[in-house]
Amino acid sequence: MAGNSFGRIFRITTWGESHGTALGVVIDGCPPRIPLAPEDIQLDLDRRRPGRQFTSPRGEPDRVEILSGLFQGVTTGTPISLIIYNKDVRSRDYDEISLVYRPGHADRTYEQKYGIRDWRGGGRSSARETAARVAAGAVARKFLHSRGISVRGYTVALGGVHCKEKNLDEIDRNPFFCPDPEAARAMERRMTELREAGDSAGGIVEVCACGCPPGLGEPVFDKLDARLAGALMSIGAVKGVEIGKGFASADMTGSEHNDPVTASGYAGNNAGGILGGLSTGMEIVVRAAVKPIPSIAIAQQTVNRHGEPATIRIKGRHDISAIPRIVPVCEAMVLLVLADFMLHPFPPGFPRNPGAAVRSV
Amino acid sequence: MAGNSFGRIFRITTWGESHGTALGVVIDGCPPRIPLAPEDIQLDLDRRRPGRQFTSPRGEPDRVEILSGLFQGVTTGTPISLIIYNKDVRSRDYDEISLVYRPGHADRTYEQKYGIRDWRGGGRSSARETAARVAAGAVARKFLHSRGISVRGYTVALGGVHCKEKNLDEIDRNPFFCPDPEAARAMERRMTELREAGDSAGGIVEVCACGCPPGLGEPVFDKLDARLAGALMSIGAVKGVEIGKGFASADMTGSEHNDPVTASGYAGNNAGGILGGLSTGMEIVVRAAVKPIPSIAIAQQTVNRHGEPATIRIKGRHDISAIPRIVPVCEAMVLLVLADFMLHPFPPGFPRNPGAAVRSV
Amino acid sequence: MAGNSFGRIFRITTWGESHGTALGVVIDGCPPRIPLAPEDIQLDLDRRRPGRQFTSPRGEPDRVEILSGLFQGVTTGTPISLIIYNKDVRSRDYDEISLVYRPGHADRTYEQKYGIRDWRGGGRSSARETAARVAAGAVARKFLHSRGISVRGYTVALGGVHCKEKNLDEIDRNPFFCPDPEAARAMERRMTELREAGDSAGGIVEVCACGCPPGLGEPVFDKLDARLAGALMSIGAVKGVEIGKGFASADMTGSEHNDPVTASGYAGNNAGGILGGLSTGMEIVVRAAVKPIPSIAIAQQTVNRHGEPATIRIKGRHDISAIPRIVPVCEAMVLLVLADFMLHPFPPGFPRNPGAAVRSV
Amino acid sequence: MAGNSFGRIFRITTWGESHGTALGVVIDGCPPRIPLAPEDIQLDLDRRRPGRQFTSPRGEPDRVEILSGLFQGVTTGTPISLIIYNKDVRSRDYDEISLVYRPGHADRTYEQKYGIRDWRGGGRSSARETAARVAAGAVARKFLHSRGISVRGYTVALGGVHCKEKNLDEIDRNPFFCPDPEAARAMERRMTELREAGDSAGGIVEVCACGCPPGLGEPVFDKLDARLAGALMSIGAVKGVEIGKGFASADMTGSEHNDPVTASGYAGNNAGGILGGLSTGMEIVVRAAVKPIPSIAIAQQTVNRHGEPATIRIKGRHDISAIPRIVPVCEAMVLLVLADFMLHPFPPGFPRNPGAAVRSV
Repeated sequence: MAGNSFGRIFRITTWGESHGTALGVVIDGCPPRIPLAPEDIQLDLDRRRPGRQFTSPRGEPDRVEILSGLFQGVTTGTPISLIIYNKDVRSRDYDEISLVYRPGHADRTYEQKYGIRDWRGGGRSSARETAARVAAGAVARKFLHSRGISVRGYTVALGGVHCKEKNLDEIDRNPFFCPDPEAARAMERRMTELREAGDSAGGIVEVCACGCPPGLGEPVFDKLDARLAGALMSIGAVKGVEIGKGFASADMTGSEHNDPVTASGYAGNNAGGILGGLSTGMEIVVRAAVKPIPSIAIAQQTVNRHGEPATIRIKGRHDISAIPRIVPVCEAMVLLVLADFMLHPFPPGFPRNPGAAVRSV
Repeated sequence: MAGNSFGRIFRITTWGESHGTALGVVIDGCPPRIPLAPEDIQLDLDRRRPGRQFTSPRGEPDRVEILSGLFQGVTTGTPISLIIYNKDVRSRDYDEISLVYRPGHADRTYEQKYGIRDWRGGGRSSARETAARVAAGAVARKFLHSRGISVRGYTVALGGVHCKEKNLDEIDRNPFFCPDPEAARAMERRMTELREAGDSAGGIVEVCACGCPPGLGEPVFDKLDARLAGALMSIGAVKGVEIGKGFASADMTGSEHNDPVTASGYAGNNAGGILGGLSTGMEIVVRAAVKPIPSIAIAQQTVNRHGEPATIRIKGRHDISAIPRIVPVCEAMVLLVLADFMLHPFPPGFPRNPGAAVRSV
Repeated sequence: MAGNSFGRIFRITTWGESHGTALGVVIDGCPPRIPLAPEDIQLDLDRRRPGRQFTSPRGEPDRVEILSGLFQGVTTGTPISLIIYNKDVRSRDYDEISLVYRPGHADRTYEQKYGIRDWRGGGRSSARETAARVAAGAVARKFLHSRGISVRGYTVALGGVHCKEKNLDEIDRNPFFCPDPEAARAMERRMTELREAGDSAGGIVEVCACGCPPGLGEPVFDKLDARLAGALMSIGAVKGVEIGKGFASADMTGSEHNDPVTASGYAGNNAGGILGGLSTGMEIVVRAAVKPIPSIAIAQQTVNRHGEPATIRIKGRHDISAIPRIVPVCEAMVLLVLADFMLHPFPPGFPRNPGAAVRSV
Repeated sequence: MAGNSFGRIFRITTWGESHGTALGVVIDGCPPRIPLAPEDIQLDLDRRRPGRQFTSPRGEPDRVEILSGLFQGVTTGTPISLIIYNKDVRSRDYDEISLVYRPGHADRTYEQKYGIRDWRGGGRSSARETAARVAAGAVARKFLHSRGISVRGYTVALGGVHCKEKNLDEIDRNPFFCPDPEAARAMERRMTELREAGDSAGGIVEVCACGCPPGLGEPVFDKLDARLAGALMSIGAVKGVEIGKGFASADMTGSEHNDPVTASGYAGNNAGGILGGLSTGMEIVVRAAVKPIPSIAIAQQTVNRHGEPATIRIKGRHDISAIPRIVPVCEAMVLLVLADFMLHPFPPGFPRNPGAAVRSV
């Protein structure tokens, strides 16, 4: 209810504040006998880590430990508890913001809801919370990998620069997880510009999932796209989500938008791999609009806790954009949704091993 | 799990197929002592009803009956069961589609998931299912009204025509729930064109909620925006959702996007009334991208149940666009999310009557 | 949250009051392609029906209708909505009790919780609510039958008479579902006595489930026995639940209580078919203590709604004991728990068809 | 779904194995601004700790750390993560049992469910898991204390010795939490006897809750007694649960069992403080039957993992009875149920601060 859990069957519960002792996640419902080691998780955590160019220089080492749920190198079906101790905690950077509300942040809404807020680095509302999502997503990835499903995210827009081409081989060759090398260079210039101006940028992340059997999802309120939308929108910086053609669908006609049905699948994927809330067996394609980082060095109007006008210039070590660090977070949310649905009951008679489910009709 | 329920505290469960005996909804968790009569619900159902211009001429009367949960004209806190008997059921219109899969519909994905599908009018996957949502939303509206919250939806784009102005007084003066009279006229021309072409159109619906206290929502996975996104994306035709500036945020800088904080609220509402997943007390603004109706008279390529190529031209009585009938459905989903969060536990010490919650800081 | 739903995957939601228009249940999550007809459900409803000897002479016909979820005689995987219209509704019998609180009933606690109560026949708190449970249980029975699981309940004590033998063939040969014919005769004498005295009786119901594969249940909070205990205790009249040796275990030693392990199962079943919250593959045995019907003709002390002392003698048509009508209700709750767990995810590699799961090790 | 979470609003998720690195619990939904310190939790943990007379001499120090959810000494409304590192882990004691199944334990059922088991000390099925419940219960106790509710457990039977009197002042004056000093002495003699025989004993624990407002609980499937029954039965050793008169009700008549209603409450508490699933405002009284510890030094028949007959004598450091250590565990489960229901939505108009709810009518 308090909303720190996600998923029904593959279910995670995250905890921890930006400047507390540690943060972590408990994964309940991971199938047994999946090989798992800390390195599997560290890999994804490192992709989210700050310290890259254009990201905050804070030295968060983000070392994950597995505290339970493993025996002899494989999962046992019992809860997997992961912990990441906070190391580089300088809450004095944040003393000033204990008195005023930062525009674009949750400072005042938390205080209005709870009558108290942990102002050290945003406390629970800090993006640091997403490290636990990425850790859990890495476990989901291991499970999905055993079922032939892979998930990949990348940046399709940043600071007003939109990708023109989509070459997934380029993703790891630039600091933005950008599949278009020319766009990546323009993004870099734009980021340098904004850093000098003390401003920040938004962008768009796309996530693709391959290998999903048809029929994943539940057809009414728990449609696969509904769960993906909720999952991505639950990331602090995300303000929009679309599937397949998304908002562009609004301007299309039916004859343009419908993907013709073929024996082996569909001749086109405007649907983004989902029809009637159920996966079609085609690639699942989802995009998230990321708002600009609200912490900027430029002066902003606000009020203090007494309601008196104040000016704030956010110092401290901040990213210029949630991109690229948000890319593995978006991936994690998609992984978690898919892992959960892969464990939903399939009807009897249906191939019982969902990984082997019919892909052709 | 099977996903026919929505909400946690104000929780609904819908049932029924397009061409079955009836459809309905059970509302569990509605507070007691809310005045309620069938007319309250009928009002919203009538706004969703076909038979208006540009919508299907099927004579669905959609008469709702309240079967339980009322005593002496008020709710009792026990489940409210609503039923709408299906009247105009001609399943012979659909016999042909029992053999082939309609492009853009869930015909094949249902069959892949369940090994069976009720092909009469789409069965459970029919948009007729949304009548139950609208009925439940009307009950949520009564409850929210008692707390000072109102919700209103309207069309901001249809068939490629986008609204330039937003005058809510215009909404009920045209068949599209469109707040821009000039755009409404252009939409009408476009619809006539498409009807003649046997094609269909998509569009964009915007929903606004006024009067929400700050602090509604849960800050991590059950953010108010996450739940709204999931709610709207669970409507069959919706392919994208955005909050506040939404996808436009991606191209903005932090200094443009942040809403300055004032003593009484915020000077701007780019955030769409939500920060950190919690309502700010400003108007909540959310938009849904609606894909074109997939049932078109134009010939389309598909396959039959044996995987053999087939051509299909959808006859029968179909809408040209899910708009305007989807507008009250979008409203309903927003109403249901807000009603649910209004009953979430607020911390002790916080004003206990959420309706009276602090609006100013 | 408001608690009118039960189960996670095979999930039911019940609604309706004793003297409302109708009562019913929505079953969400029933697997597709299970043959189902109204008669399957009517059979169990008739076993719960009043009109038998020692039960209330009210003429509730309890005709069930299936409103959704079926196509061509089998379930489709979509919600199954069942409705039973109330026929013999004489609320004037209850007018008097609108003013005073009946001892042993929920009259005052409802009013304290909701600030309103439907006093017609107890409203939602009436045992009539259990008809919906029995209807849903009958659907669960059909599903479980397809997996080789059968569930049977019977009376082991009534009005102070306890069974000495347990011959299941006797169950349908007496009006109490009693497996001991001699005890049944003593029960009959006791019931006649109590009817003359205007008093009522309690008893004990036992339910057995055969054919469950080992490993059903979840090992910590959702142990199979925990769910069974919650399920049975959710029946209004039940005040105690025990598994296997139950309360007698408390006086046993470990060497007496432990069931020796054998290659094919266990040499003994003190555990009642459950170890560590998981089914062992042996017969599951659970008992429920049923309190005497609180509505008695003998004068009782109470207060009216103004807190003034009052005397009440309950007239109207009431049973002398919840037994035997509660027997199919207890069965239904066990059926619902088992159906739910049979659809829980089993680990990959485990036989995917739970019905075929390993019984021997 | 995998069942390591408990509660809806005050919701806990436990994790950890007997011989893993650590065990812990995440509490989600605890209200903000409740003062909390590790000592509050340690107090209850120490009551559950082994090392007392008649309990296992294992030196588990059970030091709890609070990793999140606190700021300046009070809860913030965000998840509270508690961890207890395992110190005295000698898994070599358990090597032998990796090969055979211990009678009365979950060894084989786990292996049947998961295809793998962590045989070190029972892994997740060990009673050590309950330390996390007690830690979470201590936090619930702090919250409930702020609302005027107190919960106390004690032993009413052990090894066949049943209490005759109930003097709660005696509870802490003997090693069994027994309210009858004479019974306590007989229990001590019985325990010595059984220790010498290498056998073990069961017993009965009673838990009382004072100060609950009327109306706690939800009236159909989530009755207060249903949730209490499920909660207590989820403790590994518990085989029976009863409320108020419990199984004795079965032999009573309605005129004996009904508690007369008075202006200020009820003249009697046979109902155990619950009517129609809702608290009456009287003391809530619940009892749990505890089976004898299955680990005994006496030789038992079993089979090994290959299904071959084997004899087992359990060595290692084991308790003679789950009592008294299970007493705080039973308390914890009652505390968790009550904390959860205290945060359930109360209807509008009802006193909004549940702690101040009407106790008199």
